[in-house]
Amino acid sequence: MFGDYVEKTIEVDEIYQGKIFNVEKLMVELPNQVTAQRDIVRHKGAVAVLVEKDGKILLVRQFRKAAERHLLEIPAGKLDHQAEVPLDAVKRELEEETGYAAQTWTKLNSFYPSPGYCDEVIHLYKAENLEKIDQPRPMDEDEFLDVIWADKSKVQELITSQEIMDLKTLYALAMYQLGHENS
Amino acid sequence: MFGDYVEKTIEVDEIYQGKIFNVEKLMVELPNQVTAQRDIVRHKGAVAVLVEKDGKILLVRQFRKAAERHLLEIPAGKLDHQAEVPLDAVKRELEEETGYAAQTWTKLNSFYPSPGYCDEVIHLYKAENLEKIDQPRPMDEDEFLDVIWADKSKVQELITSQEIMDLKTLYALAMYQLGHENS
Repeated sequence: MFGDYVEKTIEVDEIYQGKIFNVEKLMVELPNQVTAQRDIVRHKGAVAVLVEKDGKILLVRQFRKAAERHLLEIPAGKLDHQAEVPLDAVKRELEEETGYAAQTWTKLNSFYPSPGYCDEVIHLYKAENLEKIDQPRPMDEDEFLDVIWADKSKVQELITSQEIMDLKTLYALAMYQLGHENS
Repeated sequence: MFGDYVEKTIEVDEIYQGKIFNVEKLMVELPNQVTAQRDIVRHKGAVAVLVEKDGKILLVRQFRKAAERHLLEIPAGKLDHQAEVPLDAVKRELEEETGYAAQTWTKLNSFYPSPGYCDEVIHLYKAENLEKIDQPRPMDEDEFLDVIWADKSKVQELITSQEIMDLKTLYALAMYQLGHENS
C-alpha cells in the first residue's frame, strides 16, 4: 500500500495563459524521492445541466473544434471566475444556450472529467419545471448552437450513432435512466 | 438552425509540446465570418476498463497532482501512439496497473471527456474472467497506485464520500448498474 503520500511540488513553470485554460509544467517529488514532470491544464471549473420536460431531454448541438465535428451535449459552460456559485452559473448557461429558466434545481454530482492532467471540476444539475424566457441573455458571441429535444428512444439512437460522444452527457443520461428505473 | 457549418482553421500556433499533451492556439472563422480563438489540448487518446469479478469492481487509488488529492478510478492509461489498437493498450494497462489479464473483453463505448477544448477520446472496455499474471509488466516508473475491490454497496459509499470523482469511472459504474438492472 502506498497510502496517503502526496507529490510535493518542487518547481512551477507557467507555460501558457489561454482564453479558457492555463498550462503549467510542474516538477514534483514522488514517494521514492525521484523527481517527475507533471503537465497540468488549469481550468476555472464548469457547470452542466440535465433538463427534462414531458419525458424529453434537452440537448444542444454545436461544432466542437477539438473534435472537428458537431457533438450533441447537455447545456454546459464555464464558471465566470473560480469563486462563482455553480448554481448561478448553470442558471445563466441554461438561459443563454436555450432561452429557458427552471423552477426546480437538483444537484446531481461534481466530478473531474480528466483528472490525469486537468484540474477542471464540473458541477452537474438537474432542472425541471421549465419556463421560456421572453428576452433571454444572448449567447457568447462565438457560440452557435441548435437546441434539440430527444425522448428516451431518440437518446438511445443518438448514443448508438455516436452523435452523443460527450462524457458528461453520457453520464447524465445514464443517471437519468437509473433514476427512472429506480422510481 | 445553424446546421452543418464548420469552424475553418485560419492559423495554428503551436504553444507547447508536453509529456502527455500538446497545446495549440488556433484562429478559426465562425459561421458569421468573425474570427475567434480556440485553445486546444492535443492528446493521443486513452483507454479504460471496468473489471468485474464475483460482483466486485476493481478500482485503483492514486495521487492525482491536478486535483492535489488521491482519487479512485477504474484502470486506465494513454495510448502509446495515436495508431495503437485500443484493445492492445487496455490489456497492457490492466496488466501494468493491477497484474491481471482477462479472457473476455467487451467494448462499451468511446467518448470525449472534455470536447470543449481537448481532442482526447477514451475507449472504454469491460473485462471478465480474470487471471493473475505471475510476472506482470512493471508499472510506469512515476506511477504509484493501490488496487481496491469494491462491491455494489462499497461503490455507492465511495461515490457519496466523493472518493470516486473521476467522470469516466462514474459513467462506467452507471453503465454497470444499468446492465444489471436490465438483465
